[in-house]
Amino acid sequence: MSHQATKISIVTEKLNEPQIEQLIEQAGAKGYTVFEGSGKGSHGVRAGSRPSVVGAFALVKIEVIVADRETADAIVEQVASTYFNNYSGIVYTEAVEILRLEKF
Amino acid sequence: MSHQATKISIVTEKLNEPQIEQLIEQAGAKGYTVFEGSGKGSHGVRAGSRPSVVGAFALVKIEVIVADRETADAIVEQVASTYFNNYSGIVYTEAVEILRLEKF
Amino acid sequence: MSHQATKISIVTEKLNEPQIEQLIEQAGAKGYTVFEGSGKGSHGVRAGSRPSVVGAFALVKIEVIVADRETADAIVEQVASTYFNNYSGIVYTEAVEILRLEKF
Repeated sequence: MSHQATKISIVTEKLNEPQIEQLIEQAGAKGYTVFEGSGKGSHGVRAGSRPSVVGAFALVKIEVIVADRETADAIVEQVASTYFNNYSGIVYTEAVEILRLEKF
Repeated sequence: MSHQATKISIVTEKLNEPQIEQLIEQAGAKGYTVFEGSGKGSHGVRAGSRPSVVGAFALVKIEVIVADRETADAIVEQVASTYFNNYSGIVYTEAVEILRLEKF
Repeated sequence: MSHQATKISIVTEKLNEPQIEQLIEQAGAKGYTVFEGSGKGSHGVRAGSRPSVVGAFALVKIEVIVADRETADAIVEQVASTYFNNYSGIVYTEAVEILRLEKF
């Protein structure tokens, strides 16, 4: 028996990781997973200071699954408004199915 | 021309990786991909022994795509029942579109 | 206010990475993210030369999000036809929701 949930993925510069993780926990998520990667594009360019720079850089993808859609929306909005005006990054969501509601 | 398929993601402690990969192959999946990461939450806490510990730890995400929904359900159920009672971890599925059915 | 978009995931041998990234940019995507991993299966076996070899190997997953479905389809078709006849690999898409259209 599976349940619908929302996976939030946040791709951002590594320097933002601790603050975003804190935000995720304070919003009520029960956990998150972090993967290191590289990339190119708007998730790595600081708005304003280097608008045309699209070089490779160190980034992280933070994944969070929450069963409650309102919590998901709150995390997405807070991350986007707090971090992605000055620093760039992307945040997106996907529909997932989970088995055990109590874990999320 | 694309086809519907199911992507299974298993996030768990690294020590479970070989056994879960074996389970995946025995269930009939044709391949899997593994990414190393870190995280916090119920996917890293062993049930019972350290119920309130949520520290950072080494984990893996194993991704498997299968075209057949019954195979996907079998893998999800087996992973959850075999590993995630004693060890913690999470397993979830997503709908994906693939191009070539014979690869999955 | 969120928007529908398509996430393309390309899992392939690391040697294909530069050419595929170039293809992605030329197709009009505004960015991509790359994660290193390992795996087993058809995404790591070169067609023809080693049809039954399924050992572990170094691979990358390249993720691209595009708001425009036609651009997504073009990238998927080009990657599959250019690389995955001689080299193996997998390409699949997922529906995602994004916040800011101008980033994708």
